Amino acid sequence: MHFTSEQRLDDGVLARAFTLGETPGTLWTPDSAAPAPLILMAHNGGLHRREPRLVARARYTAAQGYAVAAIDHPGHGDRPRSAADEQARADLRRAMRAGEPVDEIFESLVGPLVEKAVPEWRTTLDALLALPGIGGPVGYAGMTAIGIRLAVAEPRIAAAGFFAGGYVPRAQREEARQITIPLLFLLQWDDEGNPRQRALDLFDAFGSKEKTLHANPGGHVGTPWFEVEDGDRFFGRHLK
Amino acid sequence: MHFTSEQRLDDGVLARAFTLGETPGTLWTPDSAAPAPLILMAHNGGLHRREPRLVARARYTAAQGYAVAAIDHPGHGDRPRSAADEQARADLRRAMRAGEPVDEIFESLVGPLVEKAVPEWRTTLDALLALPGIGGPVGYAGMTAIGIRLAVAEPRIAAAGFFAGGYVPRAQREEARQITIPLLFLLQWDDEGNPRQRALDLFDAFGSKEKTLHANPGGHVGTPWFEVEDGDRFFGRHLK
Repeated sequence: MHFTSEQRLDDGVLARAFTLGETPGTLWTPDSAAPAPLILMAHNGGLHRREPRLVARARYTAAQGYAVAAIDHPGHGDRPRSAADEQARADLRRAMRAGEPVDEIFESLVGPLVEKAVPEWRTTLDALLALPGIGGPVGYAGMTAIGIRLAVAEPRIAAAGFFAGGYVPRAQREEARQITIPLLFLLQWDDEGNPRQRALDLFDAFGSKEKTLHANPGGHVGTPWFEVEDGDRFFGRHLK
Repeated sequence: MHFTSEQRLDDGVLARAFTLGETPGTLWTPDSAAPAPLILMAHNGGLHRREPRLVARARYTAAQGYAVAAIDHPGHGDRPRSAADEQARADLRRAMRAGEPVDEIFESLVGPLVEKAVPEWRTTLDALLALPGIGGPVGYAGMTAIGIRLAVAEPRIAAAGFFAGGYVPRAQREEARQITIPLLFLLQWDDEGNPRQRALDLFDAFGSKEKTLHANPGGHVGTPWFEVEDGDRFFGRHLK
């Protein structure tokens, strides 16, 4: 893991860009001497890890005493998009405009992303936990499909916050039953890109004894800020 | 409003029993000089306002700086049950055991309860707000059906936490669309006495721009304690 830049922010949080093999990422750490529990923050939709609303969440969470890491998944942020990804995204836009079914397109877009991203997260996790000032246990926050596979594959993940979950690949829908860690499942009630009933069915499927659904009105990017605070309290119960 | 007993609890909360006309109640107030926002806490199922898990919530909430009031609705707690109520409850138990539809029985039990309880709450609210140390704004927490009618009828209610909501009288299902105050809607995912889909439909129907659904696994009385804390933070955003 090579740090390529660092910046001390006005809330005392240290933001460091890193690369690990082909994976670019950012690590935010709090201004404290005690080892900080680690939260892996993952997103989708081709977004850059420097997207302002993702950064705002990461910074707030770091300021609450967590180390927070985000990476650009394959095809995201600074990383090249494959021709297959570009094609699938174009197909998706066209199908959504036309009101056609999008399941198979999501499957072809997200299925391979999960396969590629999860090993990168595990390698990143090894490197992060070797840094001074970062201790276990580890939480995961963000995109549902990657989170399901990572939570099933990676015993170091102790609690997870999942977002959306309307379109999740078939493989991860099956794997949901294997998850037993505490979950906070966040749903935007009117998320045009994530059918509500599928998200509710997925919540129902998780094997966890402690799982909580939070739903708020509005579309995909309309999550109220208080849910970021609720997420931090959820992690506080399980990681601190 | 006549206070009939008072007890200073070890968390500094003052618990006072009162009567107001035929309505018996309890008021919990925090040990602080500043005027406390008021939360009306309502329950159903024939429970007594001294039921330990209700009292634990009221005390915790009062210790966070709220005045909390509970009353025994007609047919609840210390108050006589009518022959019609006794019959409806017996019918309900029999129908549930037999797996028969219970909608009309709930309608006959809860519909009249809402009609009788809401005016008592409004009279109680007048009396509570006239006491020293209690200021507005006012929140409501608990039983959904009474809460819907009270929130529609009573402009002093500024935010509400509703619990369950699977069986709500037809009149209150209609009134749900008229509600515009911030809501926290708490659902037990496996509540045998409150069909999940109906509760979700009710959440969908509320007219409020800010409404949040929290769902947890388990039956009617299995709500995790952290939801009491979440409820207090919800009221903190809107009443403090």
